[in-house]
Amino acid sequence: MLDRIRIVLIGTSHPGNIGGTARAMHNMGLADLALVAPRCEPLTSDTISRASGADHIVHSARRVETLEQAVADCTLVVGASARSRTLPWPMITPRTLGSRLPDELSGVESRVALVFGREDSGLSNTELQRCHAHVHIPTNPDFSSLNLAAAVQVLAYECRLASLAQHEEEGGAEAEPQQPLASHEELEHYFAHLERTLITIGFHDPALPRQLMARLRRFTLKARPERMELNILRGILTTTEKQVARPQGEQRQDADDSNTPAP
Amino acid sequence: MLDRIRIVLIGTSHPGNIGGTARAMHNMGLADLALVAPRCEPLTSDTISRASGADHIVHSARRVETLEQAVADCTLVVGASARSRTLPWPMITPRTLGSRLPDELSGVESRVALVFGREDSGLSNTELQRCHAHVHIPTNPDFSSLNLAAAVQVLAYECRLASLAQHEEEGGAEAEPQQPLASHEELEHYFAHLERTLITIGFHDPALPRQLMARLRRFTLKARPERMELNILRGILTTTEKQVARPQGEQRQDADDSNTPAP
Repeated sequence: MLDRIRIVLIGTSHPGNIGGTARAMHNMGLADLALVAPRCEPLTSDTISRASGADHIVHSARRVETLEQAVADCTLVVGASARSRTLPWPMITPRTLGSRLPDELSGVESRVALVFGREDSGLSNTELQRCHAHVHIPTNPDFSSLNLAAAVQVLAYECRLASLAQHEEEGGAEAEPQQPLASHEELEHYFAHLERTLITIGFHDPALPRQLMARLRRFTLKARPERMELNILRGILTTTEKQVARPQGEQRQDADDSNTPAP
Repeated sequence: MLDRIRIVLIGTSHPGNIGGTARAMHNMGLADLALVAPRCEPLTSDTISRASGADHIVHSARRVETLEQAVADCTLVVGASARSRTLPWPMITPRTLGSRLPDELSGVESRVALVFGREDSGLSNTELQRCHAHVHIPTNPDFSSLNLAAAVQVLAYECRLASLAQHEEEGGAEAEPQQPLASHEELEHYFAHLERTLITIGFHDPALPRQLMARLRRFTLKARPERMELNILRGILTTTEKQVARPQGEQRQDADDSNTPAP
């Protein structure tokens, strides 16, 4: 799917933004870049620096003179825009764009273009009217002008999410191989052990429970403990019990002997 | 909601990235920036140029030496990370992060930190283990390293969408009044206390850590402890320490005296 999404930059002034766009695209798995009448030399040291290893996308970008040439083969053309101006136009959010991509790209020859305007003045009304829809990235109304590469980053990110969702939600938070969770029975053994230990150390008085065990249960269950974690906790309880129950006159020998009173 | 989300940059090397971060933040309505031990002068002409009118965010950023100082008052700390390494940690997607923000920020004292590491090496394992969860921006596996400001842009965008969604839903079902969650600082005090106690009882040998503290951190952070719960746990630790450190020949007097050897 991502190989049929084209990023189109119109009249870009700063090579760094072209490099930043290439990096954002490659990061998100996009590769098809078109530069329409750039107002700068697209490949400079700034480009290379901001592309940070993705400058092959600039090298292979098509350079054309008009928007029409850049999107001729596209079945959906979406222009990044602040707000529709003179003539209201279908306006979608980046998220809606993402959700529509699988359908839009289901045909063999389907191709989507995402069109970005000039750093200073965006897309002209004529260019906006060449688009099927406009996409507006929601911004702070007091500071709404996104950096060009940042705007590409956001839309490319939505494209990638749409692609991953189509591939059955893989990627993103890939399901970590999970350790086995403690069973109900193991948890109950732990809670019984915990209660015994708390009584042994004198922290808990079953005659005056004050919801202590209920609170510790809730805390522990919130964590969804793994079996291994519960084993550690039981180990701590066992060690605590041994330390507290040790016969008079016998001190544990492994730590903190400085606190032992002189004989 | 957006005013209680902090962006934390650790060890940033390029002033331009700090400027780009400020612009991305202001574009999305975020304002709280913390710079932890930056490896460059944060305010240069590059900063101003990339900030493009948002440099007030850099001017008002707090500058601190450690992650702890930057997130001490935060109730949820999320680290931007490629993949969990040695020890798997709760991993969420940017979208899941956004969907969780309204609940996470429902408490009066709640505060969320989004933590970003160094341009070259990201977050250290120690830093990652200070986080409740890690957020992974899904990227092209062959080119996964996002520009720092671009990563901030994507997460800030998700924050803004979450905030907009919440405004749309306002007037709906009221969220449960939540108990105050433990802050990062309170959690760190607890972990330090826990480690001392485990050493005292001879369960933990810092010379042979075997990831014990990391595992206990992960378990505890999964539970998202409330302040009151942490107070209970610290009470248990204090009681345990007193019991183990009590002078020879003195037994606790409040419970289970039948086990006391006859005088």
